[in-house]
Amino acid sequence: MNRIKLSEIPTQPPKGMDKSDHEDKTKALIEELGELQNVLFAEGKHSLLVVLQGMDASGKDGVIKEVFSGVNPMGCRVKGFKKPSEEEMKHDFLWRVHKEVPEKGMIQIFNRSHYEDVVIQRVHEWVTLPVIKERYALINAFEKLLQQNGTIILKFYLHVSRDEQQERLKERLSDPRKMWKYNANDLEESKRWDEYMVAYEDAFNTCSPDIPWMVIPADKNWYKEYLIAKTIVEALKKLDMQYPRIDGQKG
Amino acid sequence: MNRIKLSEIPTQPPKGMDKSDHEDKTKALIEELGELQNVLFAEGKHSLLVVLQGMDASGKDGVIKEVFSGVNPMGCRVKGFKKPSEEEMKHDFLWRVHKEVPEKGMIQIFNRSHYEDVVIQRVHEWVTLPVIKERYALINAFEKLLQQNGTIILKFYLHVSRDEQQERLKERLSDPRKMWKYNANDLEESKRWDEYMVAYEDAFNTCSPDIPWMVIPADKNWYKEYLIAKTIVEALKKLDMQYPRIDGQKG
Repeated sequence: MNRIKLSEIPTQPPKGMDKSDHEDKTKALIEELGELQNVLFAEGKHSLLVVLQGMDASGKDGVIKEVFSGVNPMGCRVKGFKKPSEEEMKHDFLWRVHKEVPEKGMIQIFNRSHYEDVVIQRVHEWVTLPVIKERYALINAFEKLLQQNGTIILKFYLHVSRDEQQERLKERLSDPRKMWKYNANDLEESKRWDEYMVAYEDAFNTCSPDIPWMVIPADKNWYKEYLIAKTIVEALKKLDMQYPRIDGQKG
Repeated sequence: MNRIKLSEIPTQPPKGMDKSDHEDKTKALIEELGELQNVLFAEGKHSLLVVLQGMDASGKDGVIKEVFSGVNPMGCRVKGFKKPSEEEMKHDFLWRVHKEVPEKGMIQIFNRSHYEDVVIQRVHEWVTLPVIKERYALINAFEKLLQQNGTIILKFYLHVSRDEQQERLKERLSDPRKMWKYNANDLEESKRWDEYMVAYEDAFNTCSPDIPWMVIPADKNWYKEYLIAKTIVEALKKLDMQYPRIDGQKG
């Protein structure tokens, strides 16, 4: 696997790519995802875990809203991981995460995840680097456990430029529909941009090489949504799922 | 409140009602629901609990898939209540339900609910009638507790005719996309139709008069979806919700 170097990966779509053409493709993919989720649920052999990470305002919420707009809410759950609660702090860092993994048939989306425990905690030096390194190994074992139980894990890093992030944070101050998302702390965190990039890169390059991170150019929503929808649809299609028959035989 | 008598309530839409006209209206309502959910989530003052009950094949899953197709999965959770687990059986009947009520800002859908504990349990005589009567009072207190904490509770009974149910159960045997839903037990349960109607009526007429049950004619999916979407949108609009502003003043 090639090592990920974030500064070398564009945050914009490739030049010459057509927006409206890809919006149409995304629409078709979203519909296909709805179909695939039906059979995932009916078959009940696999589950899908989508992990979303990214800096503040990188568009994680938007991905959830758009890419999963065609799925039946009955078969899809979203869990946002914020500052751990007191109870959660009394457990190992994977305890609260393990409780939320998808059962067979289900799609689970993580809005932030156990990767916060090797990123924000490293940037703020809340834990030491040797502890971070240990956590990489624990994360790898944990993800393997899920994978061996039939969980497909797709991990997306929403890669925005710092300029684009600043734009979006400013927008939150002027758009009444977005103001509630504004958090003064986001600007503070943004100052640590370079440290975040190092922490992310190290996590991406060390964690679960067979369950790789996908770095998604995320300055343009249409391109980000297209890539993510496409990746999910392709991964589910590979499972070659079938609606169960009463006689127990395959389709 | 008028007492509900199921045999006097039609399972078909009113005569002369136009299907495609109402499908268009439902589409607009679904979009409006998506908007309302955004502000519900942003404001974080209320929550919405949608309770779905109905005989097997009355279309509960379909309602979830269609009516909530415009909501952001981040703000909406679905819980199906099946046969209680061993752990659940060791608790009071509301224990597993209380764990799943929506936090402020969220929509929670119950696919079956605590009403199973006064319906199926009564029909099968797993508990005595005096216990059932006690449960009505406990349910009323429980729903009041939620309501006083800002939860809007909307309870829909999907009212299908027995003929329509038989049709749909048969369809499950012939449609490969529906076969996985087939359960031989559903036919057994269907034989107790009249007892179910009595148990439902009694629950509807006794539980939480100020949080009334709505009996939805459900033989036609387009009409059922229209009525439910309309009821939910109207209930949320009454809340007069606002996007929070940073200065803490109302929009």
